[in-house]
Amino acid sequence: MTQKKNRLRIIPLGGLDEIGKNMTVIEYGNDMVIIDAGIMFPDEDHPGVDLILPDFSYVAKRKDKLRGIIITHGHEDHTGAVPYLLKEVGERVPVLGTKLTLGLIQVKLEEHRIKKAKLREIAGGSHVSLGIFRFDFLPVNHSIPDGVAVVIRTPLGNILHTGDFKFDQTPIDGRLTDYQMLARVGKQGVLLLMSDSTNAETPGITRSEASVGDSLRRILSEADKRVIVASFASHIHRIQQVCDAAVACGRKVVVTGRSMINNTRIARQLGYLQIDDDDIIDAYDMGDLPSDEVCVLSTGSQGEPLSALARMANADHKTVQIEPGDTVVIAASPVPGNEKAVGRVINRLAKAGVHVKHKGSADVHVSGHAAAEELKLMLNLVQPEYVIPIHGESRHLRAHSNLAHSVGIPEENVFVMENGQCLEIRDGSARISEHVESGVVYVDGLSVGDVGQVVLRDRQLLSRDGIATIVIAIDAQTGKPMGEPELVTRGIIFGPESGPLLEEARARIAKTLAKTAREGATDHAVIKNAVRESLSQFMWEKIRRRPMIIPVVMEV
Amino acid sequence: MTQKKNRLRIIPLGGLDEIGKNMTVIEYGNDMVIIDAGIMFPDEDHPGVDLILPDFSYVAKRKDKLRGIIITHGHEDHTGAVPYLLKEVGERVPVLGTKLTLGLIQVKLEEHRIKKAKLREIAGGSHVSLGIFRFDFLPVNHSIPDGVAVVIRTPLGNILHTGDFKFDQTPIDGRLTDYQMLARVGKQGVLLLMSDSTNAETPGITRSEASVGDSLRRILSEADKRVIVASFASHIHRIQQVCDAAVACGRKVVVTGRSMINNTRIARQLGYLQIDDDDIIDAYDMGDLPSDEVCVLSTGSQGEPLSALARMANADHKTVQIEPGDTVVIAASPVPGNEKAVGRVINRLAKAGVHVKHKGSADVHVSGHAAAEELKLMLNLVQPEYVIPIHGESRHLRAHSNLAHSVGIPEENVFVMENGQCLEIRDGSARISEHVESGVVYVDGLSVGDVGQVVLRDRQLLSRDGIATIVIAIDAQTGKPMGEPELVTRGIIFGPESGPLLEEARARIAKTLAKTAREGATDHAVIKNAVRESLSQFMWEKIRRRPMIIPVVMEV
Repeated sequence: MTQKKNRLRIIPLGGLDEIGKNMTVIEYGNDMVIIDAGIMFPDEDHPGVDLILPDFSYVAKRKDKLRGIIITHGHEDHTGAVPYLLKEVGERVPVLGTKLTLGLIQVKLEEHRIKKAKLREIAGGSHVSLGIFRFDFLPVNHSIPDGVAVVIRTPLGNILHTGDFKFDQTPIDGRLTDYQMLARVGKQGVLLLMSDSTNAETPGITRSEASVGDSLRRILSEADKRVIVASFASHIHRIQQVCDAAVACGRKVVVTGRSMINNTRIARQLGYLQIDDDDIIDAYDMGDLPSDEVCVLSTGSQGEPLSALARMANADHKTVQIEPGDTVVIAASPVPGNEKAVGRVINRLAKAGVHVKHKGSADVHVSGHAAAEELKLMLNLVQPEYVIPIHGESRHLRAHSNLAHSVGIPEENVFVMENGQCLEIRDGSARISEHVESGVVYVDGLSVGDVGQVVLRDRQLLSRDGIATIVIAIDAQTGKPMGEPELVTRGIIFGPESGPLLEEARARIAKTLAKTAREGATDHAVIKNAVRESLSQFMWEKIRRRPMIIPVVMEV
Repeated sequence: MTQKKNRLRIIPLGGLDEIGKNMTVIEYGNDMVIIDAGIMFPDEDHPGVDLILPDFSYVAKRKDKLRGIIITHGHEDHTGAVPYLLKEVGERVPVLGTKLTLGLIQVKLEEHRIKKAKLREIAGGSHVSLGIFRFDFLPVNHSIPDGVAVVIRTPLGNILHTGDFKFDQTPIDGRLTDYQMLARVGKQGVLLLMSDSTNAETPGITRSEASVGDSLRRILSEADKRVIVASFASHIHRIQQVCDAAVACGRKVVVTGRSMINNTRIARQLGYLQIDDDDIIDAYDMGDLPSDEVCVLSTGSQGEPLSALARMANADHKTVQIEPGDTVVIAASPVPGNEKAVGRVINRLAKAGVHVKHKGSADVHVSGHAAAEELKLMLNLVQPEYVIPIHGESRHLRAHSNLAHSVGIPEENVFVMENGQCLEIRDGSARISEHVESGVVYVDGLSVGDVGQVVLRDRQLLSRDGIATIVIAIDAQTGKPMGEPELVTRGIIFGPESGPLLEEARARIAKTLAKTAREGATDHAVIKNAVRESLSQFMWEKIRRRPMIIPVVMEV
């Protein structure tokens, strides 16, 4: 039992080998805390899925030990699973975050009708205790304000969890990463560093957010008609720079898109976004202004089909009608997988005669994540004994691991882990001990967890070659087929050629049925298999396709 | 009739508002020629489709006028439709291209068992006549050797079609773009310039292919184990640089992947790729060599799941087994839409302990297309009266159009067109005259053209929420339902929750059937509609999904 008490367990449940659904469990004795609880957005491998959550069964089964949930910043890949998690572990587990982070979480909790959550505000410089753990929070720069890194003081030593970060020497809000605190913790000794790997493959350093301001000012001052800037709604620094540039050029700011409206409202209420009431106007009042006195802040930087920008591009926006000569700035980088969607929006805008500026054609975006040299600086500042690269696909975790080796951390002290693996530290050594229950949970429509791999595989098969349903009526008395088999197809073939092909297919099935009848087969499974085989072979011979084939046998 | 004779018609049938399936028709009087006949590769909007062709009905219906097909270079988006086109217009229509271009086309023709094609070799500097048209060809640089621009001398003036090009001042093969010829044609007068727009949004100039050589040499010399380089199989210059770097570092070259093997063979036979027989070895002989004396040239730079590189990443390649410490260089840029597939391969390799170098982390790729300043230089060299930006999505065509304005071409002389539009030049003026039959033709399996929008939409719907088939047996005598309705679903729901849900759905359908029976409905359409509505509503209420619902009514 003493042994169990003296071991520190670190279990990433999400965020490894993926970008998104970040979540880490830290356990010691009878105490457990969670750092971040994020979601991931589905891609074409998850047709029809709305959201992806980490599987937190491990936590749910040990919820009596759970002392708190610490959120490093307000992005959905760090906050989005909080409502789902609270439903599992109880609404009274404290959720800790900075003011803006909690403000954004509060909106999500309201959507989920969670009313009793215990939101506890912390700030850079705060100290907090949860069970046996003590925490210090220190400011870091990222593409959303008010991000923190977390120092977790455990009986076995200090853990530093960086959250997402970059080192911005000229941050928009003047809130520098607390280099002195990092150095002090490094001096005190860091047992384990868990550090953001997103940009570990990118050489050099990430440019300052301030550098985008210059481009924005130039674009806004040179444009002689309306300028629409699309950005992540949570990127309050970017939004601040757009507002500043607009005001400097004598343009009023109009905000459109649900999340942009929500986030700018919250950010202004909480003091993170500074713009005079006079300079921000309602979309319905825009018509009164000359077009060169307007700057529209919009959602849709990822090409989302229902976003404000996509609606503008489709001439389908309630209040903003795009005109030739307008300028659209896409001040964001497409998340991998979104390139085509963003391209579609740019093409529609180009067709409408709009000047489109984007990352590929102008300096309108910088990353919020530290590049290789910054990651090395972090390693050198805190000089950890052990390192777990977090927040990244395998390629990023490996690259980060190589960076750690390059600054002198021994290979055996860097743990490139998988979600659900447990790093156990005790008796002065660390090792991967076990794999806990972990994985993904799909949210599709109203339900959480009932769409699994079988359903997704079926959806993909269906989308590739379509489906053919064969209905055969069988006389319950004699076991013999009655009448003609019905054949219904979707997604296989259509148009003039399809009639004769399907006629021929029906004949082939009828022949197969006659054969099974001659052979005396009455077992439904045998009949189904025979017609499935025969139709599958027919489709392959004729059109080289392999639709999903569903035989239905009805006894009447 | 004289009027008809004196008009020049230029009809792009593909390559506008898209990257791929480039094809342009040029007509004067009773003569027609085609420049390029390419394919496009399908993306997630075309599930199950193998290839996309331009619809060339317009040409097929006028095939008696067709004097020849000119191919500017050997990439599939310029050559791939040649076999399909020849099947429509007759195998005896001459196909003109440079030696390498024809070599690559020949392979495709053999695959299609086209034996009588008239392939006519041209070269930079060649003059050719086809009908009333005379042609001059001039060398241009691109990411495949032996590309040409085409000067088409018509009774109304000269057309310059650039093909795909960049201005490389230090080309690998020493074959410079013929600047003097361009200037001379410019001096003679260019009525119309049709110019590559792919990189029109990219500021500055595209770096020389030679700059990639430095990186390759450094990577190959620093690696202490095997190096695998994946590249486009047609990028013979890149392949030459890999071979040169490998030989310089004392490594033997092993070629793997069907298209890489084919293309290096053709390129060596035709003299486009220089490597001693001693330096290129069979994959089966690789085992005898120390790993730091091997360089593998591989397909798979786009993450194609069945490619050599993907197989290596999956530990599923016949002859190349990846080992920790090996280096993989992805010397290519992902085509938009392929980012995730490439990412998957990189992640698999990273997991296997391989060092992966790619465009984002090292200088291992440059584009083959001219950037903005080069496009302006082309415009200034030839000083055309009219311009059609070709080869690009709307965004690229618009950007190119803006570049043309910026160097002084009047707006009304630049035509941003759509596929199928006809630019008619006569009496000293040009105007868009009509829209000819055009569009896309899908190749899926063995068949060309039987998969249309309906099939693709069905496949997409199927992939989003799955499908439910309801089978109802109806007594042919009484028109009343017999027995229980059958319900079969795919891609909707699966697992423990699905049983009760589907039970309830069946009950709901039975209830609806009872209702239609009470109301005396015997019309199949009425019954089908009723059960479709009722099940659709049920699914939405219960799980917020809208599967495709197919009611099948069987009379027995």
